[in-house]
Amino acid sequence: MKIAIQGIPGSFHHQVAINCFGAEVEIVGYRIFEEVAKCVAQGTCDYGVLAIENSIAGAILPNYELIDRYNLTIKDEYYLPISHNLMCLKGQQIEDLVEVRSHPMALLQCKKFFADYPQIKLVDDIDTASVAKRIHEEKIKGVGAIASKTASQIYQLDVLASDIQTVKNNFTRFIILQKPSLDLGLVKANKASIKVTVNNEKGILAELLMLMSEYGLDLSKIQSIPVIEKPWEYAFFIDTQFEDHNAFESAVSEINANFGTVKIFGKYLNRK
Amino acid sequence: MKIAIQGIPGSFHHQVAINCFGAEVEIVGYRIFEEVAKCVAQGTCDYGVLAIENSIAGAILPNYELIDRYNLTIKDEYYLPISHNLMCLKGQQIEDLVEVRSHPMALLQCKKFFADYPQIKLVDDIDTASVAKRIHEEKIKGVGAIASKTASQIYQLDVLASDIQTVKNNFTRFIILQKPSLDLGLVKANKASIKVTVNNEKGILAELLMLMSEYGLDLSKIQSIPVIEKPWEYAFFIDTQFEDHNAFESAVSEINANFGTVKIFGKYLNRK
Repeated sequence: MKIAIQGIPGSFHHQVAINCFGAEVEIVGYRIFEEVAKCVAQGTCDYGVLAIENSIAGAILPNYELIDRYNLTIKDEYYLPISHNLMCLKGQQIEDLVEVRSHPMALLQCKKFFADYPQIKLVDDIDTASVAKRIHEEKIKGVGAIASKTASQIYQLDVLASDIQTVKNNFTRFIILQKPSLDLGLVKANKASIKVTVNNEKGILAELLMLMSEYGLDLSKIQSIPVIEKPWEYAFFIDTQFEDHNAFESAVSEINANFGTVKIFGKYLNRK
Repeated sequence: MKIAIQGIPGSFHHQVAINCFGAEVEIVGYRIFEEVAKCVAQGTCDYGVLAIENSIAGAILPNYELIDRYNLTIKDEYYLPISHNLMCLKGQQIEDLVEVRSHPMALLQCKKFFADYPQIKLVDDIDTASVAKRIHEEKIKGVGAIASKTASQIYQLDVLASDIQTVKNNFTRFIILQKPSLDLGLVKANKASIKVTVNNEKGILAELLMLMSEYGLDLSKIQSIPVIEKPWEYAFFIDTQFEDHNAFESAVSEINANFGTVKIFGKYLNRK
C-alpha cells in the first residue's frame, strides 16, 4: 500500500500516515499538496493524507479546492495532538543553545517555555521537521529545533524538553483521501464535507443555514469561495455533523431542489 | 517609506507594492507572511502588502489570523489582474523549450495554451518568480517560466507569449496593512473586514447572517475559525459591503449586544 504525504520524514503528515496505516506501508513524500492530490487521483498512491485545519501551516481552503478539482473522496479524518519538542545534536544541553529555529506558529505556541531561557534567540524558519534535518545533516551545534518526537528519532537528535507548547489540548485535523471510485464501506457516517454552490442573492446564505439548522445539521465549518468563472455564483465549503443520516440526505435534496447544487466530498465518522 | 512584502522581486506582491506606492519606495521582501505582519506591527515597515484571496498560492485564512494576532488595520484593498507570461533566456524560441516550470495553479490556468505545444513538459514548482530568477542566474536553456511581466524585466528574460491564461478576467485580491494607531483618513468606507466571536449554539450563525441581511449588509466572504483555547466559542472572519455606513455601525452594535463580540480589522473602499 502506498500513502502520499506532503513533506519529509518526521513531518506531521508523516506521523499521521504512520498512525493511520502502520509503519509497514510505503510513505511517499511530495513537496506540495497539489502533487498529493494528483497522485491519489491518478492511482499512483492508494491514499493521501492532507492537513485541513492546521494551526501550524494553516493550509485549509486550498486543500478543499484540491479535493474538489481532483474529485477525491474523504474516507476519514484524523486529529493529531500538537506536540512540540525541543531537540538538538546529541550531547548538547539546553545551556549550549543560542538559537532555536522552527515554524513561526510553533515558536509562538512555545513562547512561554522560552521565557526562562532569555539567552536563546527564537528564529522563524520554513517548517518544523526540515530544521531538525538540517541540524542532523550539517551537524549544527548551538541551534535547537522544535519538532515532533518522530523527527527527533529520524534525525537522531536529543529531546531536551517534551510537550513545551503552552496550550496542551491543541489538535491539527487531517483528512484521508482516496479515489472516488473506491467503496467507502462505511456503516454509520455522522459527518460530511460538502460544497454548496448557490446563486449570489442577498441573504441566501442565511436562508441556507436556517434550512440546515431545521434538519438538525450542526455546522462545524464554513468557508466561502468565489466561483471565478461565474461571478453570479457563490460557493461554500461546509463541514456538518448530524445524528440522523436520513435528515442529512433530505437536507441535501432540498438544497439541490431550492438553492443550488451540492457536491459531497465525503461522509465519514466524526473522530473528535 | 518602507513597504513589506512576502517574496522576491518580480513576485505578485512586489508588483502590487509598486502599483500602490510607486517605484520610489523601498520594498522589503520577507520569506514568510508572518514576518510581513510582524514588521508592520513593530513599525520597521510603514505598510505591508498581503494576498488575501489568491488563486495562485491560496493563502487566505492564515493571513486573516495574522491581521488578528498582530492587531493590524486594513487600510485598503487592491485587485491585481492575473497575467501569466511565458518567458525564457534571451534568444530562445518557443520551439527550443522542452520544459516549463511554475506554480501548479499557474500551469493549470495556462493548460489550454500549451495544448498546441505537446513537446513541452509542464513541471510543478514552488512559485512563479523564483523559476524566472533561477533561469536567469543559472543561465538555464530549454526551460521556460510562467511569471509576471515585471519578473521578465527584472530577470532579463524574453517574453515569448503574453497573457496565456485561459480565463482572462481573473484577479487576486491583496490588502494593504498598517499599524492600528495610524489615522485612516477615510471619508466614505463601504466595505469592512471583521471578526465575530459567538457562543457555539446551534443555528447561531444563521441568525447572525439574518441580522446582517436585515441591516442591508452584503456578505462577500465568510470563513469560520475554531477558537482553540475556548471550545465553546466559535469565530468567523467576515467581509461585508454596505451602502449605509450607519447601518453597518448599528449592526455591529446589535451583534455586540446580542450575539458576541465584533473586532473590526478595517473599513475601506471597495475597489472592485
